[in-house]
Amino acid sequence: MRAAIFCGPRSIEVGDRPDPVIHEPTDAIVRVVLGCVCGSDLWYYRGESPHSVGPIGHEFIGVVEELGADVDGIAKGELVIAPFLYGDGTCPNCRNGSIITCVAGGSFGNGEIDGGQGEAVRVPLAGSTLVRVPGSGHSEEMLRSLLTLSDVMCTGHHAAVSAGVATGDVVAVVGDGAVGLSAVLASARLGAGRIIALSRNPKREKMAQQFGATDIVEERGEAANEAVLEVTGGVGVDAALECVGTGQSMATAFAIARPGSTLGVVGVPHGVEVPFGDMFFRNVGWRGGPASARMYIPELLDDVLDGTINPGRVFDYETDLDGIPDAYAAMDERRAIKSLVRVGSI
Amino acid sequence: MRAAIFCGPRSIEVGDRPDPVIHEPTDAIVRVVLGCVCGSDLWYYRGESPHSVGPIGHEFIGVVEELGADVDGIAKGELVIAPFLYGDGTCPNCRNGSIITCVAGGSFGNGEIDGGQGEAVRVPLAGSTLVRVPGSGHSEEMLRSLLTLSDVMCTGHHAAVSAGVATGDVVAVVGDGAVGLSAVLASARLGAGRIIALSRNPKREKMAQQFGATDIVEERGEAANEAVLEVTGGVGVDAALECVGTGQSMATAFAIARPGSTLGVVGVPHGVEVPFGDMFFRNVGWRGGPASARMYIPELLDDVLDGTINPGRVFDYETDLDGIPDAYAAMDERRAIKSLVRVGSI
Repeated sequence: MRAAIFCGPRSIEVGDRPDPVIHEPTDAIVRVVLGCVCGSDLWYYRGESPHSVGPIGHEFIGVVEELGADVDGIAKGELVIAPFLYGDGTCPNCRNGSIITCVAGGSFGNGEIDGGQGEAVRVPLAGSTLVRVPGSGHSEEMLRSLLTLSDVMCTGHHAAVSAGVATGDVVAVVGDGAVGLSAVLASARLGAGRIIALSRNPKREKMAQQFGATDIVEERGEAANEAVLEVTGGVGVDAALECVGTGQSMATAFAIARPGSTLGVVGVPHGVEVPFGDMFFRNVGWRGGPASARMYIPELLDDVLDGTINPGRVFDYETDLDGIPDAYAAMDERRAIKSLVRVGSI
Repeated sequence: MRAAIFCGPRSIEVGDRPDPVIHEPTDAIVRVVLGCVCGSDLWYYRGESPHSVGPIGHEFIGVVEELGADVDGIAKGELVIAPFLYGDGTCPNCRNGSIITCVAGGSFGNGEIDGGQGEAVRVPLAGSTLVRVPGSGHSEEMLRSLLTLSDVMCTGHHAAVSAGVATGDVVAVVGDGAVGLSAVLASARLGAGRIIALSRNPKREKMAQQFGATDIVEERGEAANEAVLEVTGGVGVDAALECVGTGQSMATAFAIARPGSTLGVVGVPHGVEVPFGDMFFRNVGWRGGPASARMYIPELLDDVLDGTINPGRVFDYETDLDGIPDAYAAMDERRAIKSLVRVGSI
């Protein structure tokens, strides 16, 4: 099969990989229909995080092609969403909702297991990992939104859930990438009364507004803090959602959080120093990390299928397998919010 | 009047201070009945935190002696509990439950306002700060428990609330000082199913068990982590309560927290480095800080008055005003869990 291969920083090639086969009776082989590039993929693309040479991509939807003998609940030919991590669903961490720390779990596109930026993937623990999409004949727009449930929409939702966003809350979203935009949409879905999006990119500002942002703050650094505090009458926001992971974005999130609130943190941290003393004396807490997407997919899927939310709008760039190198470059250069990769058809 | 005066590290003298008088119509003068020494007082006592030369002590109960014209809800002669910080109860932070960050608030025994380790205190914003104790003729044991509501019992409760302790949870309390012991009691009160107290002091272990600890872990460092993980079948605890504030105790709390859980942190941080990356990838969050005691007193007061909880047992040392220097030394040397100072009578 053909797949994108990470060869080193800024070096992605599309080449041949062995067709994946069933190793364990709990495996499934999924033929990829749509994949995409994650903001977190940019860390290794830029050489800022290590990544083994090999297959890549952890977000995809596809069609079940083969099933191990012990896989229940899904059938060949069904359309499925793959959460970006697989898990057994039964270990103490999974049962506690923290599927991302499943003792038997792992990730896709990590050098050992093929990724969603290729034609097919062996999915371990498929019965507890893959989520079947009901119905058929889904529109192109619907498929794009279904793809976001693999990671980005669940990650934005996790930011909002971690911060405890509730009806009427004033929320600020730091980061106007696809995760930040998804966090805006998730906050609106959870009933936030006011959503402040920090962005200085007209296209992203517009999308944030389409997703429910009521206020845009274009300032950065100290000026951004002051602008958000002004919007909130000097109090700070009920929930600050950190969707970038840099020291600067985290500092902004800390600064604009009202005393007693909890940050929702989903940006993979790079060079972040936590101002522990200040947070302590202001009773500002923090929760988050990688989202247990598998846990969130069912409830978000209902809202996607009935059209309540349309998170697929975050894809503003599209290519096929051969175009994957530029799909990364487009996001790296901020030409694209999020790059979709059309791999196959249903 | 007579009061304890901080003169510098390990130098506390008992001397004369001007009698406090009403400055503002919202002030009250409270004659102190019982005061005590806080674990956090030891930071300046040991020279590890700055403190101005002057009056000290932020925990006390006493009798209202004088009232400004604008103080409602309390009357002269009534027994009152002073939370360790005063506040107006009406600012956005107070209304949000974060009374410790009241925009008009402040602390006792801070150089400007007299403290609870003296004969009388001017209490600003008295109507929204002081809590009236109903009834009369309270026993000596009851008065000791009422005194804990000024700070230590509310702080232990805040650790448990911040970590979201719920019915059936497995809780670990790091720290066997008076706050840690109060956190054990608070966790039991909130319905924890199993409470692991980390202590290697027989007297404190016994008190932890009286307060509801089901397991004692005497190990420290890596060995403590392993012992707690063994108790929890390798999973970690639902709620780790950090009640010390050192780098070591915080590292222990992080290590024993199960993925997806939230630490409850109330030990004033000194030399703490947050292992942000590790916490992120394990989805271990953290909440806490100084307790908004004023918010918690009413519900805890009910349980104290009806005998459901008896937190006053943490006082295992008693002295009068003249004995305050040794009251500090006793806690510093761990001869005492918590030192009570008998200042006046009802």
